[in-house]
Amino acid sequence: MKPVDFWFSIGSTYSCLTVLRLEDYTARTGVQITWRPFNVREIMKAQHNVPFTGKPVKAAYMWRDIARRAQLYGLNVNVPAPYPLDNLALANQVAIVGAAEGWCEAYTVATYRLWFEEGLPAGNEPNLTRALAAIGQNPARVIALAETPQTVDALRQATSRADALGVFGAPSFVVDGEVFWGDDRLDDAVAWAREGRLG
Amino acid sequence: MKPVDFWFSIGSTYSCLTVLRLEDYTARTGVQITWRPFNVREIMKAQHNVPFTGKPVKAAYMWRDIARRAQLYGLNVNVPAPYPLDNLALANQVAIVGAAEGWCEAYTVATYRLWFEEGLPAGNEPNLTRALAAIGQNPARVIALAETPQTVDALRQATSRADALGVFGAPSFVVDGEVFWGDDRLDDAVAWAREGRLG
Repeated sequence: MKPVDFWFSIGSTYSCLTVLRLEDYTARTGVQITWRPFNVREIMKAQHNVPFTGKPVKAAYMWRDIARRAQLYGLNVNVPAPYPLDNLALANQVAIVGAAEGWCEAYTVATYRLWFEEGLPAGNEPNLTRALAAIGQNPARVIALAETPQTVDALRQATSRADALGVFGAPSFVVDGEVFWGDDRLDDAVAWAREGRLG
Repeated sequence: MKPVDFWFSIGSTYSCLTVLRLEDYTARTGVQITWRPFNVREIMKAQHNVPFTGKPVKAAYMWRDIARRAQLYGLNVNVPAPYPLDNLALANQVAIVGAAEGWCEAYTVATYRLWFEEGLPAGNEPNLTRALAAIGQNPARVIALAETPQTVDALRQATSRADALGVFGAPSFVVDGEVFWGDDRLDDAVAWAREGRLG
């Protein structure tokens, strides 16, 4: 079975569905998934891809669709959640630190829970400090590290890698060079990892 | 079980997946689906919703995604198909005539086959004449009827109804006031028709 890369940006609304179900999903299916934070906003800006801002009908649908699918997955989400995030870059710089230190998934789940369950925007206080404390990390240490030029550059490099792979939105799954965009393509990505085709 | 309305526009690329599999799908599931042509381009223009034009990475993904899913469904499609259509309105005015006369589905399938199998744009000749002849309709009679002010107005009214329902893209399914957007939401729509919820 080929590995599956999960390219996500904290700030993506639909990513809540994947972030909050992926631990159960991998436990059930045995698939190996690597969490790869990047800055989807940079790629979308460069590609003139504006999914919801100024599009109230499509945005309203997005929240309704997320609510219905969250119920299907047994997830607890309150929508609309605050959107867009003011501090998307910092939220993902923390995830980059987490990827280096081994707690990227735990932090991402914790910050999405606070964002989608309690309405506290990811990347802002008190979400940042509470999410890091909840997973046993020292918030002051991690936030200082997340703001260093090295971490800023590491997020930029991850974003360039995503861009080079053809990732243009989040969440995306990449398997053997194939991009699968959207929480609703997770099964497709896993099928591709197993069989090299869908179904 | 609640009825399912299938709101489609000939001109939508992803709609090929639904159009070309819906007959088999309904035969297998017993769900009753009403085909409702509208002009998605008018709604998208009004909502500043431009999915692919000027977005080459997203457009390339769309074709790849359609190709993979067509293979999953056992459909024969050649992508990229010609896009966007020059005569989207006329293609759907013919569908409006078909809806009044009882051959809307047969025409839509025939015109999509010529578009996606042979690369002949829907709404243009020779696609129009060949699609209508293939389903036993007189092309000259139908095209004349499709171009009358009455048919133009009927398509506008259908588009207004879709807009009022919150339909903003194609294909969409509407069940009991709930909108489900995308070929990949067909199962959700049918679950909603059966149970009033997903899954």
